[in-house]
Amino acid sequence: MSEFRYNRLKDTWSIIAEERAKRPHDYATHVHEEEVGDVKRCPFEYGNEFMTPPEIFAIREEGTAPDTPGWKVRVIQNKYPAVSPETPDNREFECIYDKVSGFGSHEVIIDTPDHFKHIQNFEDEDFKNIFIAYKHRILELSKDQRIRYIHIFKNHGREAGKSLVHSHSQLIATPMIPKAIDTQINQCRKYFMEKERCLICDEVKLELELKTRIVHENEYFVVYCPYASLYPFEVRITTKFHSFDFTSVVEKPFLDSLIDAVKTAVRRLHKTLINPPFNMVLYNTPPKREIPQNPTYFYNIEKFNHWYIEILPRIAILAGFELGTGYHINPTPPEHAARYLREVLL
Amino acid sequence: MSEFRYNRLKDTWSIIAEERAKRPHDYATHVHEEEVGDVKRCPFEYGNEFMTPPEIFAIREEGTAPDTPGWKVRVIQNKYPAVSPETPDNREFECIYDKVSGFGSHEVIIDTPDHFKHIQNFEDEDFKNIFIAYKHRILELSKDQRIRYIHIFKNHGREAGKSLVHSHSQLIATPMIPKAIDTQINQCRKYFMEKERCLICDEVKLELELKTRIVHENEYFVVYCPYASLYPFEVRITTKFHSFDFTSVVEKPFLDSLIDAVKTAVRRLHKTLINPPFNMVLYNTPPKREIPQNPTYFYNIEKFNHWYIEILPRIAILAGFELGTGYHINPTPPEHAARYLREVLL
Repeated sequence: MSEFRYNRLKDTWSIIAEERAKRPHDYATHVHEEEVGDVKRCPFEYGNEFMTPPEIFAIREEGTAPDTPGWKVRVIQNKYPAVSPETPDNREFECIYDKVSGFGSHEVIIDTPDHFKHIQNFEDEDFKNIFIAYKHRILELSKDQRIRYIHIFKNHGREAGKSLVHSHSQLIATPMIPKAIDTQINQCRKYFMEKERCLICDEVKLELELKTRIVHENEYFVVYCPYASLYPFEVRITTKFHSFDFTSVVEKPFLDSLIDAVKTAVRRLHKTLINPPFNMVLYNTPPKREIPQNPTYFYNIEKFNHWYIEILPRIAILAGFELGTGYHINPTPPEHAARYLREVLL
Repeated sequence: MSEFRYNRLKDTWSIIAEERAKRPHDYATHVHEEEVGDVKRCPFEYGNEFMTPPEIFAIREEGTAPDTPGWKVRVIQNKYPAVSPETPDNREFECIYDKVSGFGSHEVIIDTPDHFKHIQNFEDEDFKNIFIAYKHRILELSKDQRIRYIHIFKNHGREAGKSLVHSHSQLIATPMIPKAIDTQINQCRKYFMEKERCLICDEVKLELELKTRIVHENEYFVVYCPYASLYPFEVRITTKFHSFDFTSVVEKPFLDSLIDAVKTAVRRLHKTLINPPFNMVLYNTPPKREIPQNPTYFYNIEKFNHWYIEILPRIAILAGFELGTGYHINPTPPEHAARYLREVLL
């Protein structure tokens, strides 16, 4: 018997369809191992720095110059940007329609100089470097008052939207708070208004008691499959204590725990689903701004909003039902997914 | 220069990214011609009716019995249903979470007995049959007061979520109004509350004046690429007059116009994008119900809600940006898409 489960954070319902119950090997979508590409022509290789826009940030070996080899992680503007810092931030109309010029920042974080190293093989040092790069770019972009949200994500595998083989993350900063982020903030605010408690803290506390949907935990972090997962084998990584700001955990004493949590989640997914394509998404709290349409938007946000990282395996195809309704059919109950992920041998 | 365009109906923004401007042949995803499958084992063939659950509705040659050959269109319950009419409609809690048992109806509309005929080759008669089947099922399911929405869609091609090759549509009826439908209803209501006009009627009127985003029009219908299209080559098909109820146009004098509009849209997409995978979705007005949480939900709905059919080509991959933010990057401005679709030789 299937059931609808309410995803309070995203304000939608997931249909957990046990009739269709799928075990890991029933999902046939894997990242192809042969996906290597031509290393010499890859713009993310040592020596090919001239092929990309100039670097915005990098962690480098001492004494190496920007836009030359020697970096461990390197951030650049996307060569084909969806939004650009050079575009003015104009709000306009066009007949009965509303538009905003494409202001923002679209950046590529080159995770590693190693063309052949993918996230499932990242070492602690690699994760540390990319998290520091994320943190640095968030703090830097937050200074620009026109930026209202900074979205960081990673596409793993072609089926998840990755276009260049060499491992990289992306950042898109926008002059509006995107709809899905706004929905989550409003849902967390509503919960807080009623209970004076953080929604995600409550979920985490319950999940740690129940243990059925927990994949992994360490001193500061927990990895679990949410009750109303929209995607099969969806995984959430967050803090066991209340934390609204991702940048605050990219430092001692939390950083090692964060690295362990993300690394474990990625490796367990990789092993269980045999290199599935996935999207990794960071949901962080937007920087405080004066929002003209809603001057109290940020009131108490540090109390009710809770950052997290989500991994969405792209092993089931989104079809006319999901795209049309916003509901999702999930053929693997999160309790099953968590058990598979917990029990797989690394 | 890219721009954000507000999609008022869906309350989100599309980034029309001209820097990435893509022409039809830049999209590489096509439905594979060799996708034929084993005809003899296909449950949707004449003579294989025993392989499916019993038929709920069919248009048949006179004198043929249910669940035997002779049908032109045939509706059955999905063998692996996401929701089921036999499940009770129970609203429950589980710890701090909310759930509803998987009540509803998950039906398959077998569009044609011809295994090799796909929607781009449908003749008027085929379209007529499936629209009559849609109408019949909507009217029938609307009688069940527990059903709050009837979602009809068609997945074309594996990349759009189609699992069986033989052409079919699907219907999923749910005991709640799905989030995306609810958003559209609320957006149309808000517009009506302010202007006492229908949002889609206003858009259609403007588009017919501008002509730049029009793909096709006939006596009663218009086919256009919406201003803030979320998907490249997204196409909307709707009435030039106000109409809140799809079933009311599946009859004279509108039916021929409807068939012409959908057929033209499908064939022009097929030719322009060389058999792209796509989802076709019917957005209809839900049957009137007493919604306890909102007793005035349906007040004036026949005035502000406007049904439409949407075709979403699946030629660009939804990645971590789209899934995380609800914003979409669309690399083909709808003005360009409409021109390509208008000018292609059929």
